[in-house]
Amino acid sequence: MFKKTKKITLAAAKLMGEKALEKCEKIGKPFVFSVVDAGGHVLYTQRMEDAFITSISIAIDKAFTAATMKRATHMLTEKIKPESELFGLNNTNNGRIIPFGGGLPIIIDGDVIGGVGVSGGTVEEDMAVAKVAIDVLGL
Amino acid sequence: MFKKTKKITLAAAKLMGEKALEKCEKIGKPFVFSVVDAGGHVLYTQRMEDAFITSISIAIDKAFTAATMKRATHMLTEKIKPESELFGLNNTNNGRIIPFGGGLPIIIDGDVIGGVGVSGGTVEEDMAVAKVAIDVLGL
Amino acid sequence: MFKKTKKITLAAAKLMGEKALEKCEKIGKPFVFSVVDAGGHVLYTQRMEDAFITSISIAIDKAFTAATMKRATHMLTEKIKPESELFGLNNTNNGRIIPFGGGLPIIIDGDVIGGVGVSGGTVEEDMAVAKVAIDVLGL
Amino acid sequence: MFKKTKKITLAAAKLMGEKALEKCEKIGKPFVFSVVDAGGHVLYTQRMEDAFITSISIAIDKAFTAATMKRATHMLTEKIKPESELFGLNNTNNGRIIPFGGGLPIIIDGDVIGGVGVSGGTVEEDMAVAKVAIDVLGL
Repeated sequence: MFKKTKKITLAAAKLMGEKALEKCEKIGKPFVFSVVDAGGHVLYTQRMEDAFITSISIAIDKAFTAATMKRATHMLTEKIKPESELFGLNNTNNGRIIPFGGGLPIIIDGDVIGGVGVSGGTVEEDMAVAKVAIDVLGL
Repeated sequence: MFKKTKKITLAAAKLMGEKALEKCEKIGKPFVFSVVDAGGHVLYTQRMEDAFITSISIAIDKAFTAATMKRATHMLTEKIKPESELFGLNNTNNGRIIPFGGGLPIIIDGDVIGGVGVSGGTVEEDMAVAKVAIDVLGL
Repeated sequence: MFKKTKKITLAAAKLMGEKALEKCEKIGKPFVFSVVDAGGHVLYTQRMEDAFITSISIAIDKAFTAATMKRATHMLTEKIKPESELFGLNNTNNGRIIPFGGGLPIIIDGDVIGGVGVSGGTVEEDMAVAKVAIDVLGL
Repeated sequence: MFKKTKKITLAAAKLMGEKALEKCEKIGKPFVFSVVDAGGHVLYTQRMEDAFITSISIAIDKAFTAATMKRATHMLTEKIKPESELFGLNNTNNGRIIPFGGGLPIIIDGDVIGGVGVSGGTVEEDMAVAKVAIDVLGL
């Protein structure tokens, strides 16, 4: 009646934050980086003090989207276009579904146990920072 | 551990409001004009009594967008088109990101310390009123 | 089928704001002052730059409460006490009904045409600033 | 027209988070710890993975309350009691004003430039963690 699973720790989230910050500094722009758990709830958020205030909720919501929809946020970009049958999807869930790159799920043993989200740069830069954070977990 | 910055005063906001009002009267339409601080919080709002009620939140949110995204709101117009990779951006942040002209950031010493927002006329007219307000600061 | 009424102008609101500001400076604390129309919609808001950020919505909502409930906000203080039959009233209307002093209706010819709201000082100080603003209208 | 001020950095927030975490581990319970800037916007949030999910917004909102109301959250406890004239205060601002201990303002040169918030333990424990975080700044 119960399934085994794993859950992500603050220690792992901080390690990801450390690597993400190094990457942000290499890129040379201020970013927000966030990690959420399997329930989509914040475990860790760091904002470089010059990052856009609007990036706070975008980063958190990218992580939320990746964890709860169990996929990278850039996989939703085509799905919400006017010609797609899911047009309007990102208006659901109080607007928290972010349909562009920068959010990645944290997957272990085939189970999504969380997500990371990044905002502050171009979509490509946000995705690169998110990837560095996931990579450090060695999954 | 702390960075020096400046903050905008009510005196500056009222001066901007005065100049904006003169411009609005010259255009001959009723407008809403608002100034927010670096945190996107209202410092000043004036609504000419015949302006659209819906312009209240549009003007305030244009100022919010300019201050928190550190750019003119008209710079977002192309970015949120269906063919853009940021399509859906203006559904984030509780719908407060306004993606058309009439919002300008207040920049001093390279630091964004606030924003102004205007609503009530055409996009071109809103932008013209916002510009008059920024210009009076002589930054 | 139609009733005659009057509506408040931005010019009147700015005049009230001017007198309110003088009073605030005399008291020596930073306040937020707001005027709304008969519909409870903002006509004017000024925040002295050191005022509490939380005072923005409290001042606006006091003005909203006074205009829409057609009475001074301090007249609600007893009504929302646990032993009162209206206990819980201030949880309605998205929490916008403010049950303590600092909001006054603008009444002309027996008609409520707006409200003023003040936040930043003690309840007594907020009420004093609101009164100065109403008095300047000579109603 | 502009006032000089300072703003808090991510580096300072992370240092506070480090010291807060040590204190939490000494207490032996899982906590959420958050730092916001002068505008009440999140700069840093860390949740020990076993902390209450509801503590996320309580910790963030304690930091928001301390920063925007410029005082410790425990100073509001008496003020919102039924017999107080500010009963109902914590229903304003979308319920974000937290009226119990665990939030402290960050004050430098007499200016409030942010706040910290802690949730997860007793009020006394939350306050102790917040104090450790503020103390590390040596203000």
